Amino acid sequence: MKKNENFGEWYNEIVDTAELSDKRYPIKGMNVWTPYGWKIMMMIDSFTRRELNATGHDEVNFPLLIPETEFKKEKDHIKGFDSEVYWVTKAGDNELDVPLVVRPTSETAMYPMFSLWIRSHQDLPLKIFQIVNTFRYETKQTRSFIRVREIHFFESHTCHATEEEAQCQIEEDIVMLKKISKELCLPYFLLTRTDWDKFPGAHYTVGIDTVMPNGRTLQIGSIHHYRTNFSIPYDITYEDLDGEHKHVHQTTYGMSERLLGAVVGVHGDDSGLILPPPIAPFQIVVIPIISKKEPELVLDVCKMVTDILTKDGMRVKLDDRNMRPGAKYYDWEMRGVPLRLEIGARDIENKLISFARRDTGEKGTIDLSTLTASVDLLLNDISFTLYSRALNVQESMVTDITDMSEAPAETDETKDDVILRFGWCGSEKCGHTFEETTGYKILGTPYGADPVKCECVVCKAQSIKQAYAAHTM
Amino acid sequence: MKKNENFGEWYNEIVDTAELSDKRYPIKGMNVWTPYGWKIMMMIDSFTRRELNATGHDEVNFPLLIPETEFKKEKDHIKGFDSEVYWVTKAGDNELDVPLVVRPTSETAMYPMFSLWIRSHQDLPLKIFQIVNTFRYETKQTRSFIRVREIHFFESHTCHATEEEAQCQIEEDIVMLKKISKELCLPYFLLTRTDWDKFPGAHYTVGIDTVMPNGRTLQIGSIHHYRTNFSIPYDITYEDLDGEHKHVHQTTYGMSERLLGAVVGVHGDDSGLILPPPIAPFQIVVIPIISKKEPELVLDVCKMVTDILTKDGMRVKLDDRNMRPGAKYYDWEMRGVPLRLEIGARDIENKLISFARRDTGEKGTIDLSTLTASVDLLLNDISFTLYSRALNVQESMVTDITDMSEAPAETDETKDDVILRFGWCGSEKCGHTFEETTGYKILGTPYGADPVKCECVVCKAQSIKQAYAAHTM
Repeated sequence: MKKNENFGEWYNEIVDTAELSDKRYPIKGMNVWTPYGWKIMMMIDSFTRRELNATGHDEVNFPLLIPETEFKKEKDHIKGFDSEVYWVTKAGDNELDVPLVVRPTSETAMYPMFSLWIRSHQDLPLKIFQIVNTFRYETKQTRSFIRVREIHFFESHTCHATEEEAQCQIEEDIVMLKKISKELCLPYFLLTRTDWDKFPGAHYTVGIDTVMPNGRTLQIGSIHHYRTNFSIPYDITYEDLDGEHKHVHQTTYGMSERLLGAVVGVHGDDSGLILPPPIAPFQIVVIPIISKKEPELVLDVCKMVTDILTKDGMRVKLDDRNMRPGAKYYDWEMRGVPLRLEIGARDIENKLISFARRDTGEKGTIDLSTLTASVDLLLNDISFTLYSRALNVQESMVTDITDMSEAPAETDETKDDVILRFGWCGSEKCGHTFEETTGYKILGTPYGADPVKCECVVCKAQSIKQAYAAHTM
Repeated sequence: MKKNENFGEWYNEIVDTAELSDKRYPIKGMNVWTPYGWKIMMMIDSFTRRELNATGHDEVNFPLLIPETEFKKEKDHIKGFDSEVYWVTKAGDNELDVPLVVRPTSETAMYPMFSLWIRSHQDLPLKIFQIVNTFRYETKQTRSFIRVREIHFFESHTCHATEEEAQCQIEEDIVMLKKISKELCLPYFLLTRTDWDKFPGAHYTVGIDTVMPNGRTLQIGSIHHYRTNFSIPYDITYEDLDGEHKHVHQTTYGMSERLLGAVVGVHGDDSGLILPPPIAPFQIVVIPIISKKEPELVLDVCKMVTDILTKDGMRVKLDDRNMRPGAKYYDWEMRGVPLRLEIGARDIENKLISFARRDTGEKGTIDLSTLTASVDLLLNDISFTLYSRALNVQESMVTDITDMSEAPAETDETKDDVILRFGWCGSEKCGHTFEETTGYKILGTPYGADPVKCECVVCKAQSIKQAYAAHTM
């Protein structure tokens, strides 16, 4: 299957053949995380955990089920989720008096507790997170990691004394995002969503969008400023230094298993998955090239190399199966192992190891005497190359337009879409006109970007804001 | 609150004041894992993961929801769980055609997939596990970690070619259990459950029971041999070397957050929690004893000691809050930190550090020049002492009886129960008579124990099997 011929089919095939997930579970859109996919997801989670812990967020685990009475306290929020939640209505043989929602996100589970936990300014900021699965009754066509009904994600929730402190939290979230996405070699757009597309209940929402190679964007996460929109209905107040009771300002930040979907789609090629070294369960595969000449020595050196690299903190697999090397190459390429080392009798004579990079296919040799340093350099360069390549693709997708008539028509699965960038006066009226006329969805305006002199693509009024629009995955 | 006056109340108070969990969540028995409790649970999970990975089990993550149609395939199993499962019957505004069970355990989620995954003898053994939350509609009085409605647990599931290989798996499970429970300093009984008390659908069940200080037993986990009881209804077959299709033999092993409940109950004392060093989020707290004499030097040495121990792989907290030391001692004792180091100006002059052990209250000094080695020895000795003490308590609870009339009456919350050991002919009739007459529950017969010549406590027939009975938590 060719990636550039039919991205959608290519994606599904990669997920299957690399054994990331099994979608034959008897509920559509609820897939089984098989060992290889789950290992990668846990690696991604470990970076999330690292960043959140380093910034003083405490990990917690809240109940999955939320009483309808709590769920319905914030009106916009419930309107946004009502059509896509699962309801537990029965336990054993009993109908429940109060139906329970299966968590679609945890605001309404957490905030009643926050109202008990926060008493004074000394309890602020409150910064917590959890890594759990969440549930949405998805009615559109499902796709592994990208649109599923049980979603693995993290959600951080914070409470602050003032709107400004909450704003600082959002800046901190963006720094964490930068660090996490760097490990995944994923570039992204950071776009303040339009008012009609923000998270239900949010003051504003920043969407984190990555671009798939077919030119469609994939929202991999989001950051929200809630102001006091939730703290008022959930009665989360603190006593400030003057003894006055005030509502807290809140933020949330979350990213989902779509991160893995993005890794598959952005980096993979016609030979399979390509994993960024930081999240690869095996970063290096060592393959003995056994010939009649000194087969035992070859295997011994392979074991030694595996041991050395493992001791130096790398994740290494020695593939000593009794198969021809070509079949092994095929296997590990499919599974996206970033670096392959091949060791044969002649290499050993020359004190060399042959390598093949998964990202570029480049082959070469490294000196046994500089093994760890050379492998480390190669892995870093693989990360760098994957990121640069993805960034180039992302940038090449962006098309500037000055009139709606320039927007290309939506393509079918076999052709690539583009991302539109254009001036926008910011009015909801022009926004809706744009979306209805072109069929593109406005993703928003770059978060924290410098002003750009431009003209609204609809009403032609002068503006200083550019917007992005795309077809989404 | 005194532990030996009212164990139940003492337990609840410890869980609250050490901030392990918050039970004020608006659904009874679904509690919030607060940061400190969740950290300890994640430590316990890390040992589970270590042992399961080391024995070739792959970690997976299966969907939470199970279609009723799959859930009802094994008749005994569904009979065992029917009255205690939560049902999702609605999604958005739609009634679901097939109601979904919220996982009470994952046999019925996993086995339809196993039937797809296993084709030939080369696919065996299949060994997987997951660490997830599970749900039981508990109607009895709930208690944090011990009887809750959302339960954090791990479950491993294996498939084998033969009954004997499945039996070997159970031996491997028992070795893992030994290693995990050693980290928690928990002794336990390993008892083959009676036929009328085995897991619904199991061929046989081995219960893992620990003894709480009030003389009641707590089942912290179990191991099951399923034979082909599930592989027949779920059609899990493999083709053997002769081309014959055969049903696989299955086992499962699981332990829950009750492990943490046992740690709280078994090790704690009137001053609070006592954590075994391997699972303590902070193993050591360093407290500066600031006086007028060289306060800065004291703080510097405290920081240095904290750094050294941290670099040597220990989890250390420097408590430099502006409070009197006594208040700090109280705090960290409540939270169960195994070892406290105190450093004042005079200690520094003498090149000594004062310590206080949480398990025995013993105080002493260690030489600065042997810091890491001394602390390491102390932590190991704390583990050893906790285990030995718990084992003594467990053994002291066991009372041998030769006639049912010797069984003491059940006590109220303020007095301690005992565990009965007695001869049993093994018949269901005598078993039921015993349970009805004495009010004790038969836990089973020691797994893998040598035969003991004895007489059935009911029918007086000669036997070679002893049974244990107790009141359970």
